[in-house]
Amino acid sequence: MSRLWSEMTRRTEPYVPGEQSGHTGIIKLNTNENPYPPSPKVTEAIQEEVSRLHLYPSPTADGLRRAIAETEDLTEDHVFVANGSDEVLAFSFMAFFDPGRLIRFPDITYSFYPVYAKLFGIPYKEVPLRDDFTLDIAGFEQSEGGIILPNPNAPTGIYEPLDGIRKILEANPGRVVIIDEAYIDFAGPSAAGLISEYDHLLVTRTTSKSRSLAGLRVGYALGRPELIEGLVRIKDSFNSYTLDRLSQSGAEAAFRDAAYFREMTDKVLLTRSRSADRLGKLGFRILPSSANFLFCRHPGMAAEQLYSELKERGILVRHFSRPRISDYLRITVGTDGQMDQLIGVLHEVLAE
Amino acid sequence: MSRLWSEMTRRTEPYVPGEQSGHTGIIKLNTNENPYPPSPKVTEAIQEEVSRLHLYPSPTADGLRRAIAETEDLTEDHVFVANGSDEVLAFSFMAFFDPGRLIRFPDITYSFYPVYAKLFGIPYKEVPLRDDFTLDIAGFEQSEGGIILPNPNAPTGIYEPLDGIRKILEANPGRVVIIDEAYIDFAGPSAAGLISEYDHLLVTRTTSKSRSLAGLRVGYALGRPELIEGLVRIKDSFNSYTLDRLSQSGAEAAFRDAAYFREMTDKVLLTRSRSADRLGKLGFRILPSSANFLFCRHPGMAAEQLYSELKERGILVRHFSRPRISDYLRITVGTDGQMDQLIGVLHEVLAE
Repeated sequence: MSRLWSEMTRRTEPYVPGEQSGHTGIIKLNTNENPYPPSPKVTEAIQEEVSRLHLYPSPTADGLRRAIAETEDLTEDHVFVANGSDEVLAFSFMAFFDPGRLIRFPDITYSFYPVYAKLFGIPYKEVPLRDDFTLDIAGFEQSEGGIILPNPNAPTGIYEPLDGIRKILEANPGRVVIIDEAYIDFAGPSAAGLISEYDHLLVTRTTSKSRSLAGLRVGYALGRPELIEGLVRIKDSFNSYTLDRLSQSGAEAAFRDAAYFREMTDKVLLTRSRSADRLGKLGFRILPSSANFLFCRHPGMAAEQLYSELKERGILVRHFSRPRISDYLRITVGTDGQMDQLIGVLHEVLAE
Repeated sequence: MSRLWSEMTRRTEPYVPGEQSGHTGIIKLNTNENPYPPSPKVTEAIQEEVSRLHLYPSPTADGLRRAIAETEDLTEDHVFVANGSDEVLAFSFMAFFDPGRLIRFPDITYSFYPVYAKLFGIPYKEVPLRDDFTLDIAGFEQSEGGIILPNPNAPTGIYEPLDGIRKILEANPGRVVIIDEAYIDFAGPSAAGLISEYDHLLVTRTTSKSRSLAGLRVGYALGRPELIEGLVRIKDSFNSYTLDRLSQSGAEAAFRDAAYFREMTDKVLLTRSRSADRLGKLGFRILPSSANFLFCRHPGMAAEQLYSELKERGILVRHFSRPRISDYLRITVGTDGQMDQLIGVLHEVLAE
């Protein structure tokens, strides 16, 4: 703690991202990256853009926003883009939540939400999930300051059907409801279809998972132009150009290649189902996943020990030392080959 | 103004960046980009990194920070990197300035400072520059909340020798003094040399100007580890990965190619001096520039009219409708060829 730090710096409790390993040979199933590279068109678009790096990028990222709008069947003024969905979320906390007003999110959820709340001094209430880790819809009614929740939820992977989301929207007409859809492409229908009905709905997304662009840092939000304008005001008061030229052109190319996206997503879904079966046969209890990861526990071995045994054998998964979920491991769906290796190693570890 | 916006959104007065033009054929001398492309090694490094875009980047950007540290003859724990120097500045306002305490910056300066201050609710005092646009050092003594100023100043281009900076540091021992050195590579010695003497000095930099990477969005800060840690805490409470893989590897390559950097900087300096001479011959009054732009006025024609006449003829320069400087144009130093065209057009316009 330094005497030179602001009050804001003193009160932060920074988020800790999943381990990144520089080692090749490690099987990385801990940060829900896509195991497949992005569309070859992404590489082409980046190579085409490299010659213009001495010039500033577009501050409004029109080309990228147009590609997203067309994908979502919305107009461009319904689309906001920023540096990863984390920046979209940070801007959303700034744009729509207030220090004086209590917001709500689930007790088991993306662990960056309380970090933003502490950073900006926004009070919050953690609404407990039910025992089966589904949302307790009634707990989200009439929030004073707003709502944020992921759908599918993280790290559980459980998808809440749109009926539940609609109830939450109906019960909070005066404040912004943010549905964080980082994993929606591996799940059921998106809440984006409700934007025409609700002016207080903001849907956030990322290209890090289903579009294979974790390394490029592009997130986006969908909502009515009035909410998008609020985000733009914050962004333009913070950093005019948060998406560089290569991110803008690379991500635009990813949205333009719908066939590739479909093919890779289908592959991940197939491997998810195959892996869940095999983990089940090894005795794992697995929550029903609508994401590109499996959240599971094994009655025969503590999650923390499993995590360590896997790590020792070159496989990284994620373990959270948090109440209610410390028995669980979150395992990213990799390639079939990676999952075969995981299953083989688990077989050994559990047999010992 | 929407009922769904936070108080913060309502009080913002967003920064307006210089025009970006999609038109080829336009001569762009309005946002102080480098007219030369980055080192060919940047392109190579980016092409080498493209195959890993499905994986998250390093949240700590160690390779890039090491390259900067070696360039500056500091250790890595003295280096912070983020998404352009605008993000570095936004994080610095959050990390070191407080809503209750008045900060100071010059009245004529980078127009993003009051935007940050309004965004975060930090009160500020604008200290008037002297009539010759040099800093009034006495006006920066004993600031309650801290100091931020660019050196060289923007948009004047005037460099304050380190004696003056040292006086400001001595007169503000308890609060952070930020020296924004976006243009330092075109000027005299950097305040980075004073970091060993002053624990409350933060020096911010960009790769957008002298390193030809405006399109890649990489800024950095140099200071004691205690200040760097404050910035990291804010960054990690906001967005874990603000620099994507291509930005990190591209910028690292730029810092590793010192010879190219020297060569391009020398070319810009030569063109600056040549262009100042020729503008002088056309009757322009030019402030002594230590940046990659010339801040000048012409007694025979209003700056706003000159701006429009140039724009009509395909040349973009920057005009600020602000007190004390509305008579001036800020003209980026382009290539010799671009500056020849500018001079030719000005010759015509002024002769009409």
